[in-house]
Amino acid sequence: MALLHEDRLLPVDPGVRALAHELYDMVKDAPIISPHGHTDPRWFALNEAFPDPAQLFVTPDHYVFRMLHSQGVPLEALGVPRADGGATQTDGRKIWHLFAQNYHLFRATPSRIWLDYAFETIFGFTERLSAETADLYYDRISQALQRPEMRPRALFEQFNIEVIATTESPLDDLKWHRMIRESGWGGRVITAYRPDPVVDPDFEGFAGNVETFCQLGGQSGTSFAAYLDAHRDRRAYFASFGATATDHGHPTAQTLNLDAAAAQALYDKVLSGKADAKEREAFRAQMLTEMAKLSCEDGLVMQLHPGSARNHSDPVQARFGRDKGYDIPTRTDYVSALKPLLDAVGQDPDLRVILFTLDETTYARELAPLAGVYPCLRLGPAWWFHDSFEGMWRYREMTTETAGFYNTVGFNDDTRAYLSIPARHDVARRVDAGFLATLVATGRLTEEEAPEVMHDLTHRLARQAYKL
Amino acid sequence: MALLHEDRLLPVDPGVRALAHELYDMVKDAPIISPHGHTDPRWFALNEAFPDPAQLFVTPDHYVFRMLHSQGVPLEALGVPRADGGATQTDGRKIWHLFAQNYHLFRATPSRIWLDYAFETIFGFTERLSAETADLYYDRISQALQRPEMRPRALFEQFNIEVIATTESPLDDLKWHRMIRESGWGGRVITAYRPDPVVDPDFEGFAGNVETFCQLGGQSGTSFAAYLDAHRDRRAYFASFGATATDHGHPTAQTLNLDAAAAQALYDKVLSGKADAKEREAFRAQMLTEMAKLSCEDGLVMQLHPGSARNHSDPVQARFGRDKGYDIPTRTDYVSALKPLLDAVGQDPDLRVILFTLDETTYARELAPLAGVYPCLRLGPAWWFHDSFEGMWRYREMTTETAGFYNTVGFNDDTRAYLSIPARHDVARRVDAGFLATLVATGRLTEEEAPEVMHDLTHRLARQAYKL
Amino acid sequence: MALLHEDRLLPVDPGVRALAHELYDMVKDAPIISPHGHTDPRWFALNEAFPDPAQLFVTPDHYVFRMLHSQGVPLEALGVPRADGGATQTDGRKIWHLFAQNYHLFRATPSRIWLDYAFETIFGFTERLSAETADLYYDRISQALQRPEMRPRALFEQFNIEVIATTESPLDDLKWHRMIRESGWGGRVITAYRPDPVVDPDFEGFAGNVETFCQLGGQSGTSFAAYLDAHRDRRAYFASFGATATDHGHPTAQTLNLDAAAAQALYDKVLSGKADAKEREAFRAQMLTEMAKLSCEDGLVMQLHPGSARNHSDPVQARFGRDKGYDIPTRTDYVSALKPLLDAVGQDPDLRVILFTLDETTYARELAPLAGVYPCLRLGPAWWFHDSFEGMWRYREMTTETAGFYNTVGFNDDTRAYLSIPARHDVARRVDAGFLATLVATGRLTEEEAPEVMHDLTHRLARQAYKL
Repeated sequence: MALLHEDRLLPVDPGVRALAHELYDMVKDAPIISPHGHTDPRWFALNEAFPDPAQLFVTPDHYVFRMLHSQGVPLEALGVPRADGGATQTDGRKIWHLFAQNYHLFRATPSRIWLDYAFETIFGFTERLSAETADLYYDRISQALQRPEMRPRALFEQFNIEVIATTESPLDDLKWHRMIRESGWGGRVITAYRPDPVVDPDFEGFAGNVETFCQLGGQSGTSFAAYLDAHRDRRAYFASFGATATDHGHPTAQTLNLDAAAAQALYDKVLSGKADAKEREAFRAQMLTEMAKLSCEDGLVMQLHPGSARNHSDPVQARFGRDKGYDIPTRTDYVSALKPLLDAVGQDPDLRVILFTLDETTYARELAPLAGVYPCLRLGPAWWFHDSFEGMWRYREMTTETAGFYNTVGFNDDTRAYLSIPARHDVARRVDAGFLATLVATGRLTEEEAPEVMHDLTHRLARQAYKL
Repeated sequence: MALLHEDRLLPVDPGVRALAHELYDMVKDAPIISPHGHTDPRWFALNEAFPDPAQLFVTPDHYVFRMLHSQGVPLEALGVPRADGGATQTDGRKIWHLFAQNYHLFRATPSRIWLDYAFETIFGFTERLSAETADLYYDRISQALQRPEMRPRALFEQFNIEVIATTESPLDDLKWHRMIRESGWGGRVITAYRPDPVVDPDFEGFAGNVETFCQLGGQSGTSFAAYLDAHRDRRAYFASFGATATDHGHPTAQTLNLDAAAAQALYDKVLSGKADAKEREAFRAQMLTEMAKLSCEDGLVMQLHPGSARNHSDPVQARFGRDKGYDIPTRTDYVSALKPLLDAVGQDPDLRVILFTLDETTYARELAPLAGVYPCLRLGPAWWFHDSFEGMWRYREMTTETAGFYNTVGFNDDTRAYLSIPARHDVARRVDAGFLATLVATGRLTEEEAPEVMHDLTHRLARQAYKL
Repeated sequence: MALLHEDRLLPVDPGVRALAHELYDMVKDAPIISPHGHTDPRWFALNEAFPDPAQLFVTPDHYVFRMLHSQGVPLEALGVPRADGGATQTDGRKIWHLFAQNYHLFRATPSRIWLDYAFETIFGFTERLSAETADLYYDRISQALQRPEMRPRALFEQFNIEVIATTESPLDDLKWHRMIRESGWGGRVITAYRPDPVVDPDFEGFAGNVETFCQLGGQSGTSFAAYLDAHRDRRAYFASFGATATDHGHPTAQTLNLDAAAAQALYDKVLSGKADAKEREAFRAQMLTEMAKLSCEDGLVMQLHPGSARNHSDPVQARFGRDKGYDIPTRTDYVSALKPLLDAVGQDPDLRVILFTLDETTYARELAPLAGVYPCLRLGPAWWFHDSFEGMWRYREMTTETAGFYNTVGFNDDTRAYLSIPARHDVARRVDAGFLATLVATGRLTEEEAPEVMHDLTHRLARQAYKL
């Protein structure tokens, strides 16, 4: 007995499945390229053991705790820290029991596939997690976490990671990255430049962030030009720690291209704290275009992740703070939103912008047509809630015919759940193998071409798109 | 020969089909839970014979007459009553002939599946309806309707209905429900509270409705508080006739949470008839939040059915009145619309809100992410135009990965077409069996788990979600 | 070896594939009805040889050059003419080499299917286009184009085209159509009335166009009534050259139904050049209703093609002019947009309006429900970026259950790429065969009915809908 089905996620028709399996087998052991994610560089710097099973699998994973919470489990009972420092569950075994008792909630979800993959391949479980097996799981995982081969660097090698990118604020001194570099360890862990805290006037502490940022960037003035120079400086600093990309988590994809005077006035306004919602949005929009212009200068690949209404519940945010599973996708426009940026620099051969979406209706209608014509645009993989079997399948079905494969960038795991990384890449490889096999079986690709495309989707496109 | 394909709606791959058939067989005779629908309680109270075949299958069924009308058949020719009382076809046989001649229009539609199911399983037809078989059908059905086993209560038992909910206006005295209860008949027919006539300022006769309603609810004052007390009273009255749920058919999902003074002022304004469109929408929005608050008090499950542009054609409404097939779905937002309600009472453990949609783009983007985190939210099944094979399949594919199965509520038939009820539940059971079998075949669920989920989707989730 | 898979685009399950193949075989040689497209009537009038392979397959085909351009190939290198007349590549062989080297970009796109179909069936290639085979292709195609059987009229007959519609401006004198008619050649080439240049105030030269148009239409006055009379006159002129349809390429589906005075005032304003964006949109909206009213008079079928944000890139439009692959679909509303037109004339039995969309979210939500009730409405086939295997499949899945087959109008190739016409119809026939076979296999249609529907979708519905 096993947790994992040998042919999972492959097409059901026996002939197509056999072909898909062949394609999958070609890449299943290929190195992992992880150009976008949120692992903690501290793990690789300090290489300490992970804490208990609940702290590894439940409390920090918003996919997991949001599902339990949706069925009435209080976040406190899962050990999610309160903003006021009030008491929450600290007994890992109790949290684990709650998780195990409710493991049926994850049936047919990607979380279940990721978790079972880790449970089976890393910890050797063959019986599914449940109320009955909860302690068995807890004990075995707890013991395993003490072993040297379960330390972050050992797992990095076991996972066959060729390169992994973390994401840092421009205010970050990158000390963990420095420690990794100076440690002499050979794992390639790079950073990415995520300027939201100094670009989004709605970010907490924005004005103070900008002040600190300008100082860090060696700028004394208060002009918009000085602020942009600080970006130039920090981007170069990040690049010196391996960064090849920037990342932008805006609520919308809106861009603007104001003239210098208008941009300066807007900058002054948002720093004054008196800007209204429209002006704050305008500043974010302007900054996307500025970032694109800087990308034309320094070659950093720009990633745009718009469309999440974050921290949707005021009471939950008040009680637990940001990022507690209450981020909800919203309808997102790209066609008119990106026009100012694209008119400004969209024909520049040195620009590359990777677009992501949480609004699948834009795949066939907006994103594939845009990426299928603008030389600077590429499509990021199915993102967040869509990082799943069905999500990836819809992505391929709705983008390939108009954008082709070569305007896409391979897979991103986008995760802070370190142990799920191999599982996530495995899912992507299986979906792609199944998709390509289906194309072959229906005469849209030949059996001779499919292996090349399989390798492209698994590793080549990610390396090329992210300049790795 | 038969009208129905033994394996209809099951996956085509032979292995998956066999598994789906096993799952289907487990539930095909399970009792029908019908927690949301529009059958007429008078049928069960009086238990009279149904009139002629046209009055049973054509004239009252908007799915049927809209399709015929779309190909140029005048509504008059189908016996649809005119608002001015003018002449329309009254000869059932003539209406039936028109229907039969055009039966090919229903190819590959859910109506055809529902109709054929009733024709075969209730009336024993094996040859399809057509111009040639029109009279055969008409005569046999006419005769059958005279038999005692074709009376509403006998069919209720034949259909194996465990419980069925009707829907009534808060102005309704529930006399038919009283008559059912007093009759000593054992069928469980419950009501549901649908306050649109006293909550929607655009409802015809709104101000008069509210006046009558407040009197019915034992309130003499004109304050908003008195009006809310009338709701409390009527909700309790409905609950005494078995209601476990309320239902809200708003044009949008907009909610608001005004303070008491602002709510009173808005109430006064809409009652005065001088409110503009924005204020009328604001009142509906406010009332959704008020209804949610009352649900926290009395435990009635709240159902929200937004997003239909009703009575789209002015000339048709003028000639035939409301609800003549001219209801068209519209783009619907949930994320910002529901925020006021959810911020107000979304963490209350006594609240349950079941969300429906006619805008399938919201499944994966908004509804599954919302239901996958808010403890009070559940997803209603695929609704109205989406109550179909493809509609249900898309629903499962687009909601399961993020919301799981346990944030959904099983099937609703939502119909006034009594004879279609078994057919509709049969379709849902087949689709779910096919979906689960596909999950098993692709390693996303095990063969051991599937039967439990099959039963959950068929009856357990409906009972739990609706507190039946 | 061959470029084309014998069973391409048919379902993968062997049983369903066999049935699909039977259905496909019934219609694969059926005549081509092409009621909407953009071939050049001059081809049929002059019957000259086509120029070199690059001019035939690359430079004029926006599907082809946009994909090459998206990967960094400058439009100049593909011979796309510059607006300023500046130099671009004129060496067909060099353009062809670029195309051939990048042919892998088209993997899994409809362009590849169309191109390979022409390469194999018209030119006899069995080895795929690539850098290695580039010259072989170029030479063989160049030679073939000199042969009489490769002239437009010979191909028309070889393609088995029963009727083809071109599209002309109301300012066009239809001289090529006149020449075709007077030539005595038997091919049926008809025109269609596309009034955008005199209906859309944003069209370049609008005011001048209207002036010329009114003169052509025999009108001397400047009243809106005179302008409408000019339309009457030109529509009749187009009808005398076989036109059975009009075509409207508006940015949105907005309609309006102003009274005569308001319409006159709006007409004056847009002609003055002083109308703002809202008024220009209002004029387009008003004109859709006027065109519908004229259709009630003269019986021309009205086609509405809304929702493309054309010429999205200002720099590209400045350098190369209109229609250079930078047309991007946008979110489109039909429900409120069409209401004014439908309230005005939507119940007129002489009106027929065929709706197209680039926004697939409207299929199930808006278009199928509208076409499934309004007698005047029909759904055009999957359009432009959605004229593809997946696009057509989604179209059938999302429209059939609500609108049925008989509110759809068969296939349109909508192309100016003459050699792709048989390929495009072949794709549509295969998709429909696969779809119908799937319905049969899942009990939603019988094996006896499927052949009739297959013929309906292939040719009967197109003839009926377009009155051909």
